[in-house]
Amino acid sequence: MTTRVMVCYGQPDDPAAFDKHYESVHIPLASKIPGLLDYTWGKCSGMGGDSPYYGVAQLEFESPEAMAAGLGSPEMEAAGADVPNFASGGATLFIAEQTSVLVRDGGS
Amino acid sequence: MTTRVMVCYGQPDDPAAFDKHYESVHIPLASKIPGLLDYTWGKCSGMGGDSPYYGVAQLEFESPEAMAAGLGSPEMEAAGADVPNFASGGATLFIAEQTSVLVRDGGS
Repeated sequence: MTTRVMVCYGQPDDPAAFDKHYESVHIPLASKIPGLLDYTWGKCSGMGGDSPYYGVAQLEFESPEAMAAGLGSPEMEAAGADVPNFASGGATLFIAEQTSVLVRDGGS
Repeated sequence: MTTRVMVCYGQPDDPAAFDKHYESVHIPLASKIPGLLDYTWGKCSGMGGDSPYYGVAQLEFESPEAMAAGLGSPEMEAAGADVPNFASGGATLFIAEQTSVLVRDGGS
């Protein structure tokens, strides 16, 4: 089981500017948050319609305790303070536990 | 890089009934979708407020092509047809590519 901070970004006014800032400034800042097991990011697309989000980031921690420490860190504060600099479409944040539930013999 | 179908469930009217159906019926059904690399699931919580979602599932495929095949399968149709049986708070689906972007020496 991992605990993740999910960050779902709304459609920005200027996608190219968002991408440039996200890659050159935000990824290096958010990577400094202590306790990260992994940090994934990618663009979204819709399923038979528009996607509600432009992109999704997942900050993975090994435990709720590690996440709490990371969220309370100065590095998290710096990353959070950077979000208004590029997220013109807003950002929806929430915490999600994730456990693999795939039934490996489910298709047999 | 993986391609994922993200399924974000809104708050259900009866969380206990949701959980029972999800675990006993929906996980076995969704596990049968062909091409799955992994399938993770877990509950959500808010960050200083209510969470916009009750739980999040991620169906991971190794490529967009594998995902397209999986989404067009009879097993996906069966899993999708089951969603209204338990998701009384609705479900928001979208596709997300996810790549690890963690700068491993970012904290040094």
